[in-house]
Amino acid sequence: MSRFWNERTRRLQPYVPGEQPQDQQYIKLNTNENPQPPSALVVAAMHAAVEDKLNLYPDPECYDLKKSIADYYKLPVECVFVGNGSDEVLAHIFAGLFDQHKPLVCPDISYSFYPVYARLYDIELQQIPLNEHFEINLDGYPVENGGIIFANPNAPTSLAVPIADIERLLQRNSNTVVVVDEAYVDFGAQSCVNLVSVYPNLLVTQTVSKSRSLAGLRVGFAIGSAPLIEGLERIKNSFNSYPLDKVAQAGAQAAFEDVTAFERGCQETIRIREKAKIQLQALDFEVLESSANFLFSRPSFMPAEDLYLALKAAGVLVRYFNTPRINEYLRITIGTDAEMQALMKKISEIKQEATA
Amino acid sequence: MSRFWNERTRRLQPYVPGEQPQDQQYIKLNTNENPQPPSALVVAAMHAAVEDKLNLYPDPECYDLKKSIADYYKLPVECVFVGNGSDEVLAHIFAGLFDQHKPLVCPDISYSFYPVYARLYDIELQQIPLNEHFEINLDGYPVENGGIIFANPNAPTSLAVPIADIERLLQRNSNTVVVVDEAYVDFGAQSCVNLVSVYPNLLVTQTVSKSRSLAGLRVGFAIGSAPLIEGLERIKNSFNSYPLDKVAQAGAQAAFEDVTAFERGCQETIRIREKAKIQLQALDFEVLESSANFLFSRPSFMPAEDLYLALKAAGVLVRYFNTPRINEYLRITIGTDAEMQALMKKISEIKQEATA
Repeated sequence: MSRFWNERTRRLQPYVPGEQPQDQQYIKLNTNENPQPPSALVVAAMHAAVEDKLNLYPDPECYDLKKSIADYYKLPVECVFVGNGSDEVLAHIFAGLFDQHKPLVCPDISYSFYPVYARLYDIELQQIPLNEHFEINLDGYPVENGGIIFANPNAPTSLAVPIADIERLLQRNSNTVVVVDEAYVDFGAQSCVNLVSVYPNLLVTQTVSKSRSLAGLRVGFAIGSAPLIEGLERIKNSFNSYPLDKVAQAGAQAAFEDVTAFERGCQETIRIREKAKIQLQALDFEVLESSANFLFSRPSFMPAEDLYLALKAAGVLVRYFNTPRINEYLRITIGTDAEMQALMKKISEIKQEATA
Repeated sequence: MSRFWNERTRRLQPYVPGEQPQDQQYIKLNTNENPQPPSALVVAAMHAAVEDKLNLYPDPECYDLKKSIADYYKLPVECVFVGNGSDEVLAHIFAGLFDQHKPLVCPDISYSFYPVYARLYDIELQQIPLNEHFEINLDGYPVENGGIIFANPNAPTSLAVPIADIERLLQRNSNTVVVVDEAYVDFGAQSCVNLVSVYPNLLVTQTVSKSRSLAGLRVGFAIGSAPLIEGLERIKNSFNSYPLDKVAQAGAQAAFEDVTAFERGCQETIRIREKAKIQLQALDFEVLESSANFLFSRPSFMPAEDLYLALKAAGVLVRYFNTPRINEYLRITIGTDAEMQALMKKISEIKQEATA
């Protein structure tokens, strides 16, 4: 605590990302990265951008990138906002679209950055408990609110909400902004993007970090009605005119143009996930149905925290949340076939030792 | 205006950056970019980063980049904060370090983003007029304030404040944060960086956009006492954990390591600037003393706005501010020798026609 921090800085409880060890080689299954490299077209576009007048500012409007996203989703470019990772996009949404005088509604267990943003922008949070199956029950969400946000599929639970539930929510809450955070949607959930032309209060956020294998690039985006996007542009242009560098714009644009590589990659992740699910079940884990690139699973043979620590000692990082209700679970990112086999082998050994 | 915008979004007056035409070839002397390409080592580092596991998140701490900046300035790494361009760094400073209950003091004519940030974070601004020579008179700044910010050299005036004046200001204002925005300092002004170990209330911001020819990369930084930097980290980690992509981190790091290219580049800009100053004076401009990579100058033979428009029509972009007190001036970025000669030729032609 410093006397030079203002009230806002003092009240914050900053987000803690999953460990990103820079020094040691781990099998990294803890931050939901995609084990596959980005498409060759993406890499080529980035090399070209490195040679293209880096001394000059990038396009502050990111027009070509927005256009490639708009074209992919067959929407007007006015419906697309881009930012420095979906975290920055989410921050701008909290800053500019949620009512500061009514509580913001979100699930009690979801992306743990939401409460951090709420504190940054002094927004009261009303957290609605997931049901006993860890499902989001949108029909139970209060209508009196200053905005609604949830992840679909949800994290860390990996469960998806049916699109019909979201549509009912949008109809009931036509006066507040409903944000569906679709960071993981491409791995098997149904996207709401097509609903943005029907519901002016719907905003969908996505990222190139997961399904397009570009966590290293920091590009996220939001899709919604033109007035919502214009609101985000106002916040962005009062914060940082040039949030995306030239190389990131070029890489993300190419990622949306290379549909073949994208679809093949998602299918590969889904295939490995379904195989891993069966293997974990065979190792006496309870595993939730996943529509994401990770599995949320409870080991029955030892405490989750102990298994997390034992795996870390054995060179495998998974994510453990020491949080009520989910502290018996591990969130395991889907890696390559080889990484998942190494994980299963380590778990098997640890289990054998624990139950010997 | 949309019913889905909250109060903050409604009250904003977003920043308008200098024109960045993407479609046409102009001689671009309007956004203070460096006409020289970045160092070959920077380009090589970026190509290598493009090949280096873009599917994984970058280091959220940006440790290697911070270390290269700290080493360059011979400071501990705890004194360095990095962000997505100095605009993002400035935004976090406004969010986290300026007192929200007292007015923030800044010059009436300076970087026009300061009032935009103040509105975003609901901070009252007390703007102190530059004197009749467009100089910042820090000795006249009020002691009762919630923070002080100014650019040194100032923009768009190009004038630098003596370091002794800044030291007196720091001593008088030991209880509030004083931010010196040194975006242009490497072109001839004296930096305050060495004062951060003496004054815990001093924060210096810089960027790689100008003197390191990397406007396309979006990397800025702040240097200050460890508690100030920790305050900024708290804001950053409540906003976006991963603001700098892998390629940007690698490029900026290399830019700090290649001191030779950096120093040669700055000397070249200074040489061209001093030559351009004499040429503009010969063309009947009043030209302010410049410590930056631009000249602030008043044509005596025709209104500045008309000259701006005539130059634009002739394919040369310079910056004109339609703002009281400075609306008779043009801000002209220092380009290459060839660009400056083309500019002088166009001005000469326009002048001849105007005075015929």
